[in-house]
Amino acid sequence: MPHTKLPPRIVDDEGVRTLRPVSQGAEKWLFRPIPCLDRGFVYLVDYMGSDRAIAEAARVSYGRGTKKVSEDEALIRYLRRAMHTSPSEMVEFKFHCKMPIFVARQWIRHRTANVNEYSGRYSEMSDEFYMPALDQVRAQATDNKQGRGEALTPEQQRHVQGILARTYEKAHGGYQELLGMNLAKELARIGLSVANYTEWYWKIDAHNLFHFLRLRLDPHAQYEIRVYAEAMARIVRDAIPKSYRAFENYVLHSIQLSEMEIAFIAAHPERGDEWKLFEEFFKVVGNKREAREFVGKMKRLGFVRS
Amino acid sequence: MPHTKLPPRIVDDEGVRTLRPVSQGAEKWLFRPIPCLDRGFVYLVDYMGSDRAIAEAARVSYGRGTKKVSEDEALIRYLRRAMHTSPSEMVEFKFHCKMPIFVARQWIRHRTANVNEYSGRYSEMSDEFYMPALDQVRAQATDNKQGRGEALTPEQQRHVQGILARTYEKAHGGYQELLGMNLAKELARIGLSVANYTEWYWKIDAHNLFHFLRLRLDPHAQYEIRVYAEAMARIVRDAIPKSYRAFENYVLHSIQLSEMEIAFIAAHPERGDEWKLFEEFFKVVGNKREAREFVGKMKRLGFVRS
Amino acid sequence: MPHTKLPPRIVDDEGVRTLRPVSQGAEKWLFRPIPCLDRGFVYLVDYMGSDRAIAEAARVSYGRGTKKVSEDEALIRYLRRAMHTSPSEMVEFKFHCKMPIFVARQWIRHRTANVNEYSGRYSEMSDEFYMPALDQVRAQATDNKQGRGEALTPEQQRHVQGILARTYEKAHGGYQELLGMNLAKELARIGLSVANYTEWYWKIDAHNLFHFLRLRLDPHAQYEIRVYAEAMARIVRDAIPKSYRAFENYVLHSIQLSEMEIAFIAAHPERGDEWKLFEEFFKVVGNKREAREFVGKMKRLGFVRS
Amino acid sequence: MPHTKLPPRIVDDEGVRTLRPVSQGAEKWLFRPIPCLDRGFVYLVDYMGSDRAIAEAARVSYGRGTKKVSEDEALIRYLRRAMHTSPSEMVEFKFHCKMPIFVARQWIRHRTANVNEYSGRYSEMSDEFYMPALDQVRAQATDNKQGRGEALTPEQQRHVQGILARTYEKAHGGYQELLGMNLAKELARIGLSVANYTEWYWKIDAHNLFHFLRLRLDPHAQYEIRVYAEAMARIVRDAIPKSYRAFENYVLHSIQLSEMEIAFIAAHPERGDEWKLFEEFFKVVGNKREAREFVGKMKRLGFVRS
Repeated sequence: MPHTKLPPRIVDDEGVRTLRPVSQGAEKWLFRPIPCLDRGFVYLVDYMGSDRAIAEAARVSYGRGTKKVSEDEALIRYLRRAMHTSPSEMVEFKFHCKMPIFVARQWIRHRTANVNEYSGRYSEMSDEFYMPALDQVRAQATDNKQGRGEALTPEQQRHVQGILARTYEKAHGGYQELLGMNLAKELARIGLSVANYTEWYWKIDAHNLFHFLRLRLDPHAQYEIRVYAEAMARIVRDAIPKSYRAFENYVLHSIQLSEMEIAFIAAHPERGDEWKLFEEFFKVVGNKREAREFVGKMKRLGFVRS
Repeated sequence: MPHTKLPPRIVDDEGVRTLRPVSQGAEKWLFRPIPCLDRGFVYLVDYMGSDRAIAEAARVSYGRGTKKVSEDEALIRYLRRAMHTSPSEMVEFKFHCKMPIFVARQWIRHRTANVNEYSGRYSEMSDEFYMPALDQVRAQATDNKQGRGEALTPEQQRHVQGILARTYEKAHGGYQELLGMNLAKELARIGLSVANYTEWYWKIDAHNLFHFLRLRLDPHAQYEIRVYAEAMARIVRDAIPKSYRAFENYVLHSIQLSEMEIAFIAAHPERGDEWKLFEEFFKVVGNKREAREFVGKMKRLGFVRS
Repeated sequence: MPHTKLPPRIVDDEGVRTLRPVSQGAEKWLFRPIPCLDRGFVYLVDYMGSDRAIAEAARVSYGRGTKKVSEDEALIRYLRRAMHTSPSEMVEFKFHCKMPIFVARQWIRHRTANVNEYSGRYSEMSDEFYMPALDQVRAQATDNKQGRGEALTPEQQRHVQGILARTYEKAHGGYQELLGMNLAKELARIGLSVANYTEWYWKIDAHNLFHFLRLRLDPHAQYEIRVYAEAMARIVRDAIPKSYRAFENYVLHSIQLSEMEIAFIAAHPERGDEWKLFEEFFKVVGNKREAREFVGKMKRLGFVRS
Repeated sequence: MPHTKLPPRIVDDEGVRTLRPVSQGAEKWLFRPIPCLDRGFVYLVDYMGSDRAIAEAARVSYGRGTKKVSEDEALIRYLRRAMHTSPSEMVEFKFHCKMPIFVARQWIRHRTANVNEYSGRYSEMSDEFYMPALDQVRAQATDNKQGRGEALTPEQQRHVQGILARTYEKAHGGYQELLGMNLAKELARIGLSVANYTEWYWKIDAHNLFHFLRLRLDPHAQYEIRVYAEAMARIVRDAIPKSYRAFENYVLHSIQLSEMEIAFIAAHPERGDEWKLFEEFFKVVGNKREAREFVGKMKRLGFVRS
């Protein structure tokens, strides 16, 4: 029964010498899997570059030589604010990831990456299927057409797991029976669930990885892919700490104010309560969701009178 | 029960006037679905450009004005031979496609396209699952690790369909039950099979579409995606006939001879029989598969003595 | 002497019928050049799609049919706020542009476009060189290493034009002499200035065009490329007005507040004067440029006591 | 006067330890510039991966663990023949290159790379201009609209160098005068020639680099960019020797036979002389250039009777 085994490391434990730039923060994550969901993982297989390499690439534009490391951070932060993203394309990360097919389907929508995926045409698919933990078994969200909201009752949660377990069993049993008849593998697999685990190598540059993280660390992203985004974020935070901090400060934890929001704030210097703000801004934009988003920003800015 | 309905046409039957280049061959395919597999389809939603537009784009390089249409074909054929592919990027096709998830998974690997897919997070997944026709129920190929070979017996074929039908029923029944419990849609769907139908808008330029067709019209491509490639090939053949013919002549029906094959042919002017050729060329490359590929090319060149 | 002539239109004035979606706002710009700088232009050669097509593509995700046009705008605006950019990739614009080489060199850095450029290897380069208007002849900016600042004196401005004119004359004269000796065109051209005009067809989808516009409409972009961005913005504003408005409201005229700025605002509810704000925020970030940027945002929000 | 200096190495001579895969063939090229043209260079700044990494990535598809190195080559060669290019995207090369602007303009057309270029808006442009060596000063080709043919006379060659030298001098002198007037750098540079040297960091994966090499090692590529392609080919040949050999055998030194050529060969088993072949095949395709191309292929196959 094909359980995943990590491929053996190419390099042995003490490593080998290289003349390339090395990120000690990245080195410590090489071949150290972070478990994700019930049977998945992410680990770093290879990388290229470092914060220093990003700063050096930016300095090509100026024709100036290497500066002190202490100046790298200011430069990296400036690049982020000014949306000069090309230097961060100079850093690459290559991960080995194992995840359910439905997660892989969301993930692959990020096209600016290189992928080699396990193939159910060549090889037998694994017998592993994602079973959500009880506390993730939640009802359809009411305020968000794509998300999940309240937890179901414990009884319901166990019932859900039971239905899924029987579905997986049926699908996997059918698959085994079809393989036993020597049906072509590419056909035998088509009854398998999208919860079946697959795996891939996934390589991406730091600029595009930050974009992936921005979208997939977001609370609106499906929980099951967020788990993988968080695992990669841990690795990136250590590998290129200056860049990651700039990403958090200027992107992940930032607020974007629209033209209408700016005008509203400038015109209403006094602080209002939550409901008043909603009501007044709704008059401006005529859209409930947008008005709610605005109130959320005003809270973060300390502009809501409690 | 959410069966697919084509979206209503934006434009009514007699059309509207435009100052843009028009391809009459493309016009006739707009909103005319080609059925694919048992419940899928492909149709053309929109397009941009024509053979003429490709030729005009190439002529920008020469700074010369419009030529006679009769000269377009020679230019288009030259561009193809010389691998000047950028003019064919000036033409776009936008398709609406419905296909099983496992087909979508192969398809999406072509990254140079724009995609909007039906979302099982927002909407209820369809109750349609791909059931292979009896004559497609075939054994694992023996000469090709990824393909299918001999047909199974009629009895086996029906048995396979039965196993799949019961798997789909279980999966769909579970899905309905989970939705009935108000489980979040994004979670309820994870037991559904990769044979479940999905749909998307898929937009791609002619250059990248030809690359897709080259790979997916190939006999090694899985039958189920080949069906879609063939449907799109019919449309493209009418939409940009000069370019399609050049693609067939110089790419699809071409042969690539390796350095070793060239040397072998030059050194062995006499014709041999199939087995002899295999044996001799195997001595050169030490690889059975490659030697078989060589014999196949020699047959097409008429170099095998029967 | 090879002066640019627009290529003749493929379609005649009354147009032809099409079953494709048509944008009347785009139709009126087809083959109507907008002059840029002293001898350049931009015009729309072809396009695909409309605001409606963007909304329809988004609705594929929901599996729902066509809605009223009145709902398109709310959907398009939501997509923009939520960074769901893929539907806007479904619209394409194809421009014919003529611009100095140094402008083309900045422009081509936007890689997600299709390009066919005039070739100095095949054809004689034009005798046209960009001469900046007097009011654009300005000194190096003092606050911005990459920009221009104060105007030079009128005398200096004329002197600059004179130097450039003589440089162009020398370069063009040399080029003509080398061509006269039958030197290969690909070599004869290498003395020509980067102010020499070139031209290309440039095709890009709406999502990537908005990204281009965001960067190239910015006051920090070089004036000479901004002129082309403004010309294309006029066309796009008419072609997909709902999308353009959303781009203006949520991107172009928006403000992004960093984590530090949010915390500062929340902690300092009282309004300060400009200098005080700068001083206080400089203590937080230790960076003059960033503190100046902050003061600029606070002014737009009406938070600076005058 | 800003002459290029290589940036100091980040890593010192004995290197540091890494747990990443190392290619000894790549290591030896790190920070060792290969001179190109009269004042340019290419050197390797960083890399990721190795032949082994390509084979490992391919094996993810099979779900099998690491194999013996001796099997990597057969796999890599198979991937190349079968156009399975994604595993070779797993290897990256990052170069520092210095080249004339007109070479950079051809180079940048390869969009699937990451670039950071020296900026004439921020920094003073170099005083270095490309001067073709005497033996490269050749006439326009007669059989190829884009190439160069016969050498000019020695006297003409020196005359050409003189014209270029005076053009460069004028352009550089004007630039210096404009800078002396404190004209904005972004404007002062517009009279500089496209022979002026620029530099950049250029990062690309092995798959796309092979595509670059295929086009730019071709005899039809302009000599001046071919020199850079050859320099990078030397580095790649050492860095990933198995992949490079496969590229040579199956791509660079291969022949592609069109549908018409295959049919012609099969129908004309006897060997003809060069003129006869041309004449007969011209009847088939009606195109002189294509008939000449065919004769060239027949020569390589030993099918032309001398």
